[in-house]
Amino acid sequence: MAELTLTTFDWVPEAPRGFVRDIRVRWALEEAGLPYRVESTPFRGRGPAHFAHQPFGQVPWLTDGDISIFESGAILLHLGHLSDALMPADPRGRSQATEWLFAGLNSVEMASLPWSILVFSGNAGDAPAWKRLNEFLTGRLQRLEPVLAEREWLAGAFSVADILMADVLRLVDRFDGLADYPVCRAYLARATARPAFVKGHADQMAHFAATD
Amino acid sequence: MAELTLTTFDWVPEAPRGFVRDIRVRWALEEAGLPYRVESTPFRGRGPAHFAHQPFGQVPWLTDGDISIFESGAILLHLGHLSDALMPADPRGRSQATEWLFAGLNSVEMASLPWSILVFSGNAGDAPAWKRLNEFLTGRLQRLEPVLAEREWLAGAFSVADILMADVLRLVDRFDGLADYPVCRAYLARATARPAFVKGHADQMAHFAATD
Repeated sequence: MAELTLTTFDWVPEAPRGFVRDIRVRWALEEAGLPYRVESTPFRGRGPAHFAHQPFGQVPWLTDGDISIFESGAILLHLGHLSDALMPADPRGRSQATEWLFAGLNSVEMASLPWSILVFSGNAGDAPAWKRLNEFLTGRLQRLEPVLAEREWLAGAFSVADILMADVLRLVDRFDGLADYPVCRAYLARATARPAFVKGHADQMAHFAATD
Repeated sequence: MAELTLTTFDWVPEAPRGFVRDIRVRWALEEAGLPYRVESTPFRGRGPAHFAHQPFGQVPWLTDGDISIFESGAILLHLGHLSDALMPADPRGRSQATEWLFAGLNSVEMASLPWSILVFSGNAGDAPAWKRLNEFLTGRLQRLEPVLAEREWLAGAFSVADILMADVLRLVDRFDGLADYPVCRAYLARATARPAFVKGHADQMAHFAATD
């Protein structure tokens, strides 16, 4: 197997530490027990070499031999095909893990990320714009709650879909957005108690602290 | 091959017609020349049968034999594996199409959909919340513009990534959000001039008009 290299920023401010999206990839790699190296790209002064790997100037990206992949969802799907610990092997289970991976990104995070941006920037409150986006997120969490009440993990066994969904819910929970959703909170606690998350999270914190 | 069935709403109000996400699936099916049937689910009174296929109460979903798939991204990926017209066959091209499919959803639509919600609900303007989300979208379009200046399609040949990205840009363009991005506009015009889009779009309009 070709060597896997995960690239993230060399440094980030305090606030996003623990939430930079390389955590999703670290977590998946730890779950699968796949060997990998971590490299850094400058947070300040993102140049052509960065944009060649990640056209939006974000992180992470993963190289697997001569293939370079950006987008945490695409990276998780790629890793899912490398290990049964990340994705069921049967077609139906694989299809379920894939649709829930997309749902984490496109049904939940599409509502939760703008919500988080507004909360973090002090724009939560009474403004109509905030209310619209808060309703958008609420609508999605109200549907996720009964789904998670019926199952331990989204696609039968634990999979990349859970890594994605749990990481999306982490940021909502950070801003107290899960207060009314005990089932989502229990799912999040179950997911983040896994040793692979704990290791990946500690590694990310240590990585950014090393360049302070 | 098992029969492919696309399910969408039986009816929607005027405003979203032409933009309901079944267009992405219709477009892909037409590009690939795959035979399919279209079924309807009630727009009003979404019940357990609907949520069993689409847990968030949205559309579309696709059934392929005994597998039912929701999330337009997951459906496009599934169809991409059924036809070379939708996804390059080589690993590198396939990886590129996949990462750009995710980028359309998670880097661009994650910024453009909340933006569209605020524009459509009359919340664009001077409010700080609007400005934050407008900056979010602007940042993404400013990066997409030079990418599209260098290539006809996102992953070498036309692929599901272009169906996704073009459909995401359509909604931005509807609200004049592409005025400053001539390369994005040219890409969108190129994509939507394809006979498969024209057919899929006409079919969606006819489908909803039939139940008026």
